[in-house]
Amino acid sequence: MDLSTILGILAAFGLMFAAMSSGGNIGIFIDIPSVMIVIGGTVGTVLVHFPFGDVFSSISVFKKAILHKSVDPKERVKTMVEYAGKARKEGVLSLQSVLNNINDPFLEKGLQMAVDGQEPDTLKELLDREIDYIQERHDKGADIFIAMGTYAPAMGMIGTLIGLVQMLQSLNDPSSIGPAMAVALLTTFYGAIIANVFCMPISGKLKGRSATEVLDKSLIAEGLKLILKGENPRIIEQKLHAFIAPKLRESNFNN
Amino acid sequence: MDLSTILGILAAFGLMFAAMSSGGNIGIFIDIPSVMIVIGGTVGTVLVHFPFGDVFSSISVFKKAILHKSVDPKERVKTMVEYAGKARKEGVLSLQSVLNNINDPFLEKGLQMAVDGQEPDTLKELLDREIDYIQERHDKGADIFIAMGTYAPAMGMIGTLIGLVQMLQSLNDPSSIGPAMAVALLTTFYGAIIANVFCMPISGKLKGRSATEVLDKSLIAEGLKLILKGENPRIIEQKLHAFIAPKLRESNFNN
Amino acid sequence: MDLSTILGILAAFGLMFAAMSSGGNIGIFIDIPSVMIVIGGTVGTVLVHFPFGDVFSSISVFKKAILHKSVDPKERVKTMVEYAGKARKEGVLSLQSVLNNINDPFLEKGLQMAVDGQEPDTLKELLDREIDYIQERHDKGADIFIAMGTYAPAMGMIGTLIGLVQMLQSLNDPSSIGPAMAVALLTTFYGAIIANVFCMPISGKLKGRSATEVLDKSLIAEGLKLILKGENPRIIEQKLHAFIAPKLRESNFNN
Amino acid sequence: MDLSTILGILAAFGLMFAAMSSGGNIGIFIDIPSVMIVIGGTVGTVLVHFPFGDVFSSISVFKKAILHKSVDPKERVKTMVEYAGKARKEGVLSLQSVLNNINDPFLEKGLQMAVDGQEPDTLKELLDREIDYIQERHDKGADIFIAMGTYAPAMGMIGTLIGLVQMLQSLNDPSSIGPAMAVALLTTFYGAIIANVFCMPISGKLKGRSATEVLDKSLIAEGLKLILKGENPRIIEQKLHAFIAPKLRESNFNN
Amino acid sequence: MDLSTILGILAAFGLMFAAMSSGGNIGIFIDIPSVMIVIGGTVGTVLVHFPFGDVFSSISVFKKAILHKSVDPKERVKTMVEYAGKARKEGVLSLQSVLNNINDPFLEKGLQMAVDGQEPDTLKELLDREIDYIQERHDKGADIFIAMGTYAPAMGMIGTLIGLVQMLQSLNDPSSIGPAMAVALLTTFYGAIIANVFCMPISGKLKGRSATEVLDKSLIAEGLKLILKGENPRIIEQKLHAFIAPKLRESNFNN
Repeated sequence: MDLSTILGILAAFGLMFAAMSSGGNIGIFIDIPSVMIVIGGTVGTVLVHFPFGDVFSSISVFKKAILHKSVDPKERVKTMVEYAGKARKEGVLSLQSVLNNINDPFLEKGLQMAVDGQEPDTLKELLDREIDYIQERHDKGADIFIAMGTYAPAMGMIGTLIGLVQMLQSLNDPSSIGPAMAVALLTTFYGAIIANVFCMPISGKLKGRSATEVLDKSLIAEGLKLILKGENPRIIEQKLHAFIAPKLRESNFNN
Repeated sequence: MDLSTILGILAAFGLMFAAMSSGGNIGIFIDIPSVMIVIGGTVGTVLVHFPFGDVFSSISVFKKAILHKSVDPKERVKTMVEYAGKARKEGVLSLQSVLNNINDPFLEKGLQMAVDGQEPDTLKELLDREIDYIQERHDKGADIFIAMGTYAPAMGMIGTLIGLVQMLQSLNDPSSIGPAMAVALLTTFYGAIIANVFCMPISGKLKGRSATEVLDKSLIAEGLKLILKGENPRIIEQKLHAFIAPKLRESNFNN
Repeated sequence: MDLSTILGILAAFGLMFAAMSSGGNIGIFIDIPSVMIVIGGTVGTVLVHFPFGDVFSSISVFKKAILHKSVDPKERVKTMVEYAGKARKEGVLSLQSVLNNINDPFLEKGLQMAVDGQEPDTLKELLDREIDYIQERHDKGADIFIAMGTYAPAMGMIGTLIGLVQMLQSLNDPSSIGPAMAVALLTTFYGAIIANVFCMPISGKLKGRSATEVLDKSLIAEGLKLILKGENPRIIEQKLHAFIAPKLRESNFNN
Repeated sequence: MDLSTILGILAAFGLMFAAMSSGGNIGIFIDIPSVMIVIGGTVGTVLVHFPFGDVFSSISVFKKAILHKSVDPKERVKTMVEYAGKARKEGVLSLQSVLNNINDPFLEKGLQMAVDGQEPDTLKELLDREIDYIQERHDKGADIFIAMGTYAPAMGMIGTLIGLVQMLQSLNDPSSIGPAMAVALLTTFYGAIIANVFCMPISGKLKGRSATEVLDKSLIAEGLKLILKGENPRIIEQKLHAFIAPKLRESNFNN
Repeated sequence: MDLSTILGILAAFGLMFAAMSSGGNIGIFIDIPSVMIVIGGTVGTVLVHFPFGDVFSSISVFKKAILHKSVDPKERVKTMVEYAGKARKEGVLSLQSVLNNINDPFLEKGLQMAVDGQEPDTLKELLDREIDYIQERHDKGADIFIAMGTYAPAMGMIGTLIGLVQMLQSLNDPSSIGPAMAVALLTTFYGAIIANVFCMPISGKLKGRSATEVLDKSLIAEGLKLILKGENPRIIEQKLHAFIAPKLRESNFNN
């Protein structure tokens, strides 16, 4: 799993836990009905907002994004340049031989079409559209976490309003005001944590992963187009290097 | 009706109801004048914001979006590929025969124009513009719910201010402060619920439905263009598959 | 005048009025200095934000938008198709004869240029630019109301802060705290009403009207271009129908 | 100087002053440390946000925008049409003679390039890019005021928090609570005024001025291009009129 | 280091420090657990939001942006015009000789490709894409500070809620309420400072630096393209001057 996510969540929750327990009794921060109204309400509104399918697939997007190891763009450029060299020397059809060792379905599809004799511009257009739709599906995953991060504080506020109204209607016992208000604030507290420590950061990470994957696929699409156009591998490397940070650029060629 | 919408609303309202009744008397959360000021005020401002026609048609958009069963994109690709096969073997005019079995007016219009001998690019342009305007009309439906979700909390705040001013002007009886403030808070409570449990999630669902329908219509428009261009059905399938998630792709052909 | 605007404002203000008078004395909601600080401050900041000319012309945009009866798009398509028929049978110059019966200056200008022998694409480009600038001027009208809706609550808050500071500096008489705070809240109350019941909904209506007018003018521009290109009236109808909702489409031809 | 800006600021501050003095002692609204923390903090953060150069040039942009008298677009169209007439009758080189009477450096540069025999499309492209960068520089001026309008309320809140913490730590003397809180609120008050009565409206006016200047320069760029293309002055007038409101259009020709 | 950043931070913090110490004891504003929950929580959530690599590289982006001395655009135009003159007189290959004195890797890469005989439009396209990706990487640096500026106040609010709940649950000792609430407010105070005095202004400065660098690189890309096209150095100067403010334009030629 992704180390920074684990460390980040541990750090944030650990410090909060320390602050909460510093007051002595951490039990005052736990109120099951409050938990239920915030989490249940958030899940409920998210189910109204998105169809079932999207909510379920967001879980798999989440898991995949956290666990998935993305390809180093440096390595991808290297591979594409190798393919270019092979295609130049032995012809595009020779790429058939590398098809078996490929796990990435996007690269596989692209190579297959290249070997099948697709025109370079058509191939690029097709792969670009596929990248657009991949990005759209990824964005939907991040959108669900953003929606949760928007509804959770609202549910927290609704819960606090319920608590306040109940408290204000029964002011007879002054000694109960403090604890009642403390409990009323708990839903706001839960909503703020769910939104800011969980949903929003996770949506950010999903977006970052999506950008990494889109970059990887753009390198593949651009590379295959250039290979089909019969470009010089050295030029291809130069063109693909424009996509990545200078310090990641490592040439296969001794200039 | 859409299952996730029902479940979501039941979950959110059920939990809120449980929380409200946990304090004993749920009657303290009901105040007819407060309901009227929030709902009436929201409806009033929405009528100022949008013309009558748009408000009424938003109800039909809402009903249609909740009840309408959208076509599975997998099925749509399959159908388009079948048409392509038929057009290839028997000529484009043979598609006249499938026109009778079609319920979708968009597909019907497209096919009719194809059979009438429209140029592929003109057909695509025309259908694309129609998709643009469909999307615009759908967006207006979602916009009305977003506007309601913006005005409802504002009306809630206005109602609470009215209650606070009335309470502050008559502080003589201290025992009435609590209940008066509780009532004043109810409009804020109603506004928050209308916005966050109803309007915003529904606007989200409408947008999702719109995206699904636009995808479906894009498959039709692209498919018809390719059919008119006389493309190979296998290539058409490949190109249409780029629009949908890999796991939804099912080939008609045994590769 | 526009019915939904009147009804909406009546509904919203009526309900607020009922809620305010329910507390007995509606006089507690009226404070002339508070009215002056919110309205005067809002007008003042809007005058800093926009030049005089824009503020004055926004009043005429507002009046025109509320009173103006927009052309039914169905009718517009019909007219354009009639012109197309006439131009086809009797030549484009024959449209000279309809020029006298036209009130719409945009249509008049377009027809005049068509009759004068302008190229179809040049005509379209010219009319499209005019549409762009019409939209820009309309948007400025809506922008002024949005600015007012942004400054009014800010002025309300500033007024409330003034009241709070005055109250807090003279806490000697406890019985005056309540009423003083009630008065301080009035500016917030006024700001919220001006923004949410008047400015924001009106800006929404102006934008809607602008969209309707732009659609109307787009039908004219596209229609004239197609007429000059000598397109078949039936095809023109089909192309213009793509701009409007299916249920508004009424063919002039018996298919 | 710009009349509406002066009137607007006078109106807003006058009414606020009246409201503040209505409570008797206006001195309670003045607290030098609070003024310093808000103004100083805002200036400080703006200096972190923008380089020195931008902050200084924003002052000159501000001065120029307030004092500068923009050219009436009606007049600009007239002038361009006159140039077109001259160029048509006596050749483009004859425009050399008008170059001496021109103050506007943008028009001068354009005319000079026209006389030097630049191609119409190259000239247009060059002038358009210049317009883009003019707009970018103007936007930066407005951005600085927007940033100030964002930081000022934040500084106000920070100042209020400082005051609240100091007050809460010394609750021994109940009679000092009111005045201490009044002083604490002053920074919020200052922040709200700086943002809403000064920074935001001024940024709005700067944007409006920029739009006016961009329109003026677009008329010049489009006009020169058409002149170089040898277009009929009457057509040029018609095309330039599309940029401005119908009521501003005044023809040089008797139709 | 950048002077305005230092002065700005000194001014803002100095004034805050003065305000805090004016109350006598500055120690009341320091609470280690509060510092930890805000800073630790912010760092934690940022680590969840962004991968490790991005967080680390943001530090180097930050350092580079603060320390880096950007090239004066006036100088850059001058250099490009000199190269143009050299290329015109002695041929493009003569630019090989200036390659050794160049520190900027972007200019070096561009010149190298120019000398290697790249086509002007291909060169421009390649450099433009590189500029796009440079901007993307810079934006990520600014994004991390914006994210920190968003999470810090949220962590502040969470900390305050923890403090409030603890205080409300133990209202027995009235004398402790004030100090307890003061401490609870400290996290909000820290969050506001971190966001508004540090993160947001720094993100603004990073964006400004990025814009300056992109402008510099755009001058290089456009200049090299024009040199390869064999344009007249005087025309090149004129075209590059369109990118910069009129008062920065200094001609190499005596007109």
